[in-house]
Amino acid sequence: MSASSYDRAITVFSPDGHLFQVEYAQEAVKKGSTAVGVKGKDVVVLCVEKKSVPKLQEERTVRKICLLDDHVLMAFAGLTADARILVNRARVECQSHKLTVEDPVTLEYITSNGRRPFGTSCLIAGFDMDGTPHLYLTDPSGTYTEWQANATGRSAKTVREFLEKHYTDEVVSTEAGAIKLVVKALLEVVQSGAKNVEVAIMKPNEPMRMLDIGSLEKIQ
Amino acid sequence: MSASSYDRAITVFSPDGHLFQVEYAQEAVKKGSTAVGVKGKDVVVLCVEKKSVPKLQEERTVRKICLLDDHVLMAFAGLTADARILVNRARVECQSHKLTVEDPVTLEYITSNGRRPFGTSCLIAGFDMDGTPHLYLTDPSGTYTEWQANATGRSAKTVREFLEKHYTDEVVSTEAGAIKLVVKALLEVVQSGAKNVEVAIMKPNEPMRMLDIGSLEKIQ
Amino acid sequence: MSASSYDRAITVFSPDGHLFQVEYAQEAVKKGSTAVGVKGKDVVVLCVEKKSVPKLQEERTVRKICLLDDHVLMAFAGLTADARILVNRARVECQSHKLTVEDPVTLEYITSNGRRPFGTSCLIAGFDMDGTPHLYLTDPSGTYTEWQANATGRSAKTVREFLEKHYTDEVVSTEAGAIKLVVKALLEVVQSGAKNVEVAIMKPNEPMRMLDIGSLEKIQ
Amino acid sequence: MSASSYDRAITVFSPDGHLFQVEYAQEAVKKGSTAVGVKGKDVVVLCVEKKSVPKLQEERTVRKICLLDDHVLMAFAGLTADARILVNRARVECQSHKLTVEDPVTLEYITSNGRRPFGTSCLIAGFDMDGTPHLYLTDPSGTYTEWQANATGRSAKTVREFLEKHYTDEVVSTEAGAIKLVVKALLEVVQSGAKNVEVAIMKPNEPMRMLDIGSLEKIQ
Amino acid sequence: MSASSYDRAITVFSPDGHLFQVEYAQEAVKKGSTAVGVKGKDVVVLCVEKKSVPKLQEERTVRKICLLDDHVLMAFAGLTADARILVNRARVECQSHKLTVEDPVTLEYITSNGRRPFGTSCLIAGFDMDGTPHLYLTDPSGTYTEWQANATGRSAKTVREFLEKHYTDEVVSTEAGAIKLVVKALLEVVQSGAKNVEVAIMKPNEPMRMLDIGSLEKIQ
Amino acid sequence: MSASSYDRAITVFSPDGHLFQVEYAQEAVKKGSTAVGVKGKDVVVLCVEKKSVPKLQEERTVRKICLLDDHVLMAFAGLTADARILVNRARVECQSHKLTVEDPVTLEYITSNGRRPFGTSCLIAGFDMDGTPHLYLTDPSGTYTEWQANATGRSAKTVREFLEKHYTDEVVSTEAGAIKLVVKALLEVVQSGAKNVEVAIMKPNEPMRMLDIGSLEKIQ
Amino acid sequence: MSASSYDRAITVFSPDGHLFQVEYAQEAVKKGSTAVGVKGKDVVVLCVEKKSVPKLQEERTVRKICLLDDHVLMAFAGLTADARILVNRARVECQSHKLTVEDPVTLEYITSNGRRPFGTSCLIAGFDMDGTPHLYLTDPSGTYTEWQANATGRSAKTVREFLEKHYTDEVVSTEAGAIKLVVKALLEVVQSGAKNVEVAIMKPNEPMRMLDIGSLEKIQ
Repeated sequence: MSASSYDRAITVFSPDGHLFQVEYAQEAVKKGSTAVGVKGKDVVVLCVEKKSVPKLQEERTVRKICLLDDHVLMAFAGLTADARILVNRARVECQSHKLTVEDPVTLEYITSNGRRPFGTSCLIAGFDMDGTPHLYLTDPSGTYTEWQANATGRSAKTVREFLEKHYTDEVVSTEAGAIKLVVKALLEVVQSGAKNVEVAIMKPNEPMRMLDIGSLEKIQ
Repeated sequence: MSASSYDRAITVFSPDGHLFQVEYAQEAVKKGSTAVGVKGKDVVVLCVEKKSVPKLQEERTVRKICLLDDHVLMAFAGLTADARILVNRARVECQSHKLTVEDPVTLEYITSNGRRPFGTSCLIAGFDMDGTPHLYLTDPSGTYTEWQANATGRSAKTVREFLEKHYTDEVVSTEAGAIKLVVKALLEVVQSGAKNVEVAIMKPNEPMRMLDIGSLEKIQ
Repeated sequence: MSASSYDRAITVFSPDGHLFQVEYAQEAVKKGSTAVGVKGKDVVVLCVEKKSVPKLQEERTVRKICLLDDHVLMAFAGLTADARILVNRARVECQSHKLTVEDPVTLEYITSNGRRPFGTSCLIAGFDMDGTPHLYLTDPSGTYTEWQANATGRSAKTVREFLEKHYTDEVVSTEAGAIKLVVKALLEVVQSGAKNVEVAIMKPNEPMRMLDIGSLEKIQ
Repeated sequence: MSASSYDRAITVFSPDGHLFQVEYAQEAVKKGSTAVGVKGKDVVVLCVEKKSVPKLQEERTVRKICLLDDHVLMAFAGLTADARILVNRARVECQSHKLTVEDPVTLEYITSNGRRPFGTSCLIAGFDMDGTPHLYLTDPSGTYTEWQANATGRSAKTVREFLEKHYTDEVVSTEAGAIKLVVKALLEVVQSGAKNVEVAIMKPNEPMRMLDIGSLEKIQ
Repeated sequence: MSASSYDRAITVFSPDGHLFQVEYAQEAVKKGSTAVGVKGKDVVVLCVEKKSVPKLQEERTVRKICLLDDHVLMAFAGLTADARILVNRARVECQSHKLTVEDPVTLEYITSNGRRPFGTSCLIAGFDMDGTPHLYLTDPSGTYTEWQANATGRSAKTVREFLEKHYTDEVVSTEAGAIKLVVKALLEVVQSGAKNVEVAIMKPNEPMRMLDIGSLEKIQ
Repeated sequence: MSASSYDRAITVFSPDGHLFQVEYAQEAVKKGSTAVGVKGKDVVVLCVEKKSVPKLQEERTVRKICLLDDHVLMAFAGLTADARILVNRARVECQSHKLTVEDPVTLEYITSNGRRPFGTSCLIAGFDMDGTPHLYLTDPSGTYTEWQANATGRSAKTVREFLEKHYTDEVVSTEAGAIKLVVKALLEVVQSGAKNVEVAIMKPNEPMRMLDIGSLEKIQ
Repeated sequence: MSASSYDRAITVFSPDGHLFQVEYAQEAVKKGSTAVGVKGKDVVVLCVEKKSVPKLQEERTVRKICLLDDHVLMAFAGLTADARILVNRARVECQSHKLTVEDPVTLEYITSNGRRPFGTSCLIAGFDMDGTPHLYLTDPSGTYTEWQANATGRSAKTVREFLEKHYTDEVVSTEAGAIKLVVKALLEVVQSGAKNVEVAIMKPNEPMRMLDIGSLEKIQ
């Protein structure tokens, strides 16, 4: 996909100062299934709604959470095809950064690499070399912001309000607390319960792990 | 055909966040003749509706199933000319991968190579080097998903519902079972019977084979 | 008229999944004078309607049958200027293939080289190195199919129906039979008789020859 | 003038299979002053209507007949500026062909070099190296045809009908006969008589010559 | 929407001599949160309205004030994504200038580097090598102007009027005075008080510093 | 100015075979002030209407007659900015021709170098190396013609009719006669008399000279 | 800003021979604040209306008069951003000319370097190496003219009429006279008096100087 054509399309302002294509792309994000992220003391947790996978589909290919590098997780809402392009670019960038600079990318570096307007919004979470946890949110306009906890996609507003009410430093001071918060937040808008939820957990210098369904169902 | 012009056409979002050209291309797929695929224990089977070939036409040039590499089968629904371009690109990629990496492509690798939006939807089936069977479905938006069994093209929904009702691990544990399932599924929507059906079977480290009409007619 | 390019024009799908420019180009083909081809046992025969050549015109320059290589014949319906471009390209390809690969092109290879959408439809006939006869039909969408006998251009449907009724392996087992079939088929839609018909015959390892009018008139 | 923009403009088919720009360019030709050509036994003759040259204009710069090479004559109807470009290109091609191949161009070779759609139609006449006379007609669509005699431009149809009635091998077996035929044909549609007619005569291995007005007036 | 490019879009004058796209971009600026700048005797101060940051957002990533170089501050109103591009370009330019010329950029040099029309308006403040303070304002048309004090973004007019009434050389002769002026000016249009205000202070040859909230609240 | 964009614009034929942009450019010429040229025995004379120069304007910069080379004069009607581009190109071509070929350009060579459609029409006059005088007229379509005497711009038709009535070989056999003819012709359409007329005279191997106002007023 | 896109936009003629974009750009000039220039015996003087600068703006950045080289002054009316581009280009050209040719540019050389259509009109004044004073006016169409005195921008016509009435060789034979003339001319259309006027004076081989307000107010 040619990034230049994307850019070209969005450079036309409307009479009242809007960039139409950016706003239309944001509609695509609002239609996407919900993703939630929480930054805890020594942990980051991402959690997504699993699309109701048809009976015979392999779940593996529809995962909306993926690893960009050993220390960087990403979840997204919106167009899957656009997200795949972003993921591929980011993975290449992570490897090439390591080769050139001999250090892994920082979270902000890899977040700021996006091009607008893709029809996706991403939560990017992980740890810098010094162990600091980060949670970034990108949107189709090309901007990004850092959060202690946030959501994107369908019903993101409801989830965000839940997080605002329940997030405290104490709640996220343990891994269990952070997981519980993120799952409960998502279940506010996912009616069908823990079986339609996917959770990825990352701690400093440990491999990412997905929560198994048994642990998940205990949370509900 | 210039891929960049394709890309340019699709980067325009509609006010409610749709990419029109992708959706229009999906209409072309829905007009295409039906294709079905099943992933069994040690076998993958693809099955397509044969267009009612005029009396004097050689069937060989209208086959909707083809080999991408010794271990990769493809069937498609939609625009034949677009599919031919995808096939040619994929075959070149398979050869060049073998030369460069000295290993054959994985099924997911060759599936993820598509560009959007071609007016085709493909079922890609086969085996990775470790013998794992795979069945992928691509669509005009550039996304792909993995399935135990699925269909595309005209009446794909009816076929998929049949598969969901009858697919069990036991049914596909034998080659005969997998073939029977895929053919019966397609015959749900192809009125004219087994003579208008084409079946390709692939097993690990064996050459692909097409089912002969005698065996086919016994299934009905 | 917008100055947008050829390729760009055809990549735009209509809301119901059609590629408009391809369909419009097919209208140009349907306006072209009729061409018919038959594949016999050891012979291929192409036959075209000669435009009613004005009294003083040299017939040589309006021939709608031409040689692409010693073993490849082509006839076309539709825009003459587009066909000339295709012929020139194909001839260059045939020569360059011989130089590079040291073998002449196969019939399918030279057929598959087309670009869409030219306002022409071609019948390409001849023999592979092993002596197998082939007869391909291309259309403006870029697809091609192989036939035992077929027609293109104005009234192609009527001619095809004639061929379907009268083509048998026996009829085309002799050169005379194949010629008779192809000429009679064309005369179904050419009112003015054998004088407005042109016939080219090719046998393995023999130069192509045009049928003289005397022989032609005996057929009617 | 950029040929690519020309080509781009004409690649858009109308819903009924026409290329509009080619047809519009043909209208420009029909508005041009008439040109006639005759191929005799050992002679080719081109004849054009001279625009009524204003009193003080030098006739030399408005001639519609010109030499492309020692053995190639050209006359045209339609846009003068487009014709000049074609003439310049053809002259360069003739010279470069002689340098590269060491033989002069054949008449068909130099005729087939045109690009569409120029707003001109040309009569190209002359002799191949073996002394064979040729007379070609090109049109804005990029096609060309060979003739014993033909006309282009305004009222070409009337002139062509005159030629068809009066052309016989005997009539053109002498230079005088060929000249008389071509002039009389043009005078069918040029009311103002021989003074508004320009005639160029070419014989094998002889320089082209223009007919003087004295000889011309005797013909009428 | 036509795929015409950025530059092309803005070069089209309206019949009454306006460049539409520049004016539309200015609307985007007027929607942005307010920024204020003051140039004092030995100090420059920039002050921005902080967007009401949602509870869980990290403030660091939404700062609308940033350093371009050790001696250059920037604040902006309008599209964040456009501003980020400008910031990145300016930072590269600052470094590359230092490498090439061995002197830091002057304030005017770095200000004049903008390209139009970005949907942002910037206040650029700092010190030249000789210690002279500067405060520049850029707008989407690509022009820039120097000020003793000014504002941009939403309600910029109200803030500017406050500044015009209260700015005197004496008031800004001390750092405290300059800070007080800039904060009070912004609070004219920011209802929610000092907690939604961010202030950056720069003095010659000293690192930039942000005002802490305690000091800020004393000002109100 | 990009010639290719010009060309692109003009390649679109209207349904009746016109090139609109060429015709519109000719309207720009018809609005231009009148220019006249006469070719005498050993002299060429160009004469233009001087725009009524405002009181304080220096006449030198509005001259519509200029030298392209020592032996080539040019006058124009139409857009001044377009003419300047043509003049600059022609001057460079004259110098570069002299360097490459070691002979000065012929008049026809330098005339034929134009590109269409500029909004100007030029009279180009001078002498070839052999002393032959020439007078060419170019128009926006890119064509040129040679004349004994002609005019272009506003009221060119009236001037041309005057020239046709009064031009004889005898009249222009002397320099004085040629000057008188050209001036009187222009005064047919310039009401304000000789003071608004500018005359340039060129003789073989002599520098061009402008007629002084004293001599001019005697003519009237 | 891409000059080629500018050019493309203006190459389209309207049916009556106008270049719309050039005329629209001239509207932008007519909206600009007024600039006046006078060429005296040994002095050139430029004078512009100062926009009513807001109270806190530094006047230096809004000056509409600038130096292109030691011997070349420029004032402009119209779009500031376009003027800045012209100024930057001209300054580079002046320096590069000095390096290449070892002589400073002539006034006409630097004036003729413009590209159309910028939304500005410039007065360019100064001295050639031989001490001759020049005053040029450029407009958006790309043409330029030389003047003894002239104006551009809003109400230019009124100012020009004043100049025509009062300009005599004697009046401008002294620096004081030239200054007085130019200021009084501008004050015809600037109601607010000498304080809103800026005057630049240049004499051969002397640095340019701006008139101080004291001297200015004495003129009124």
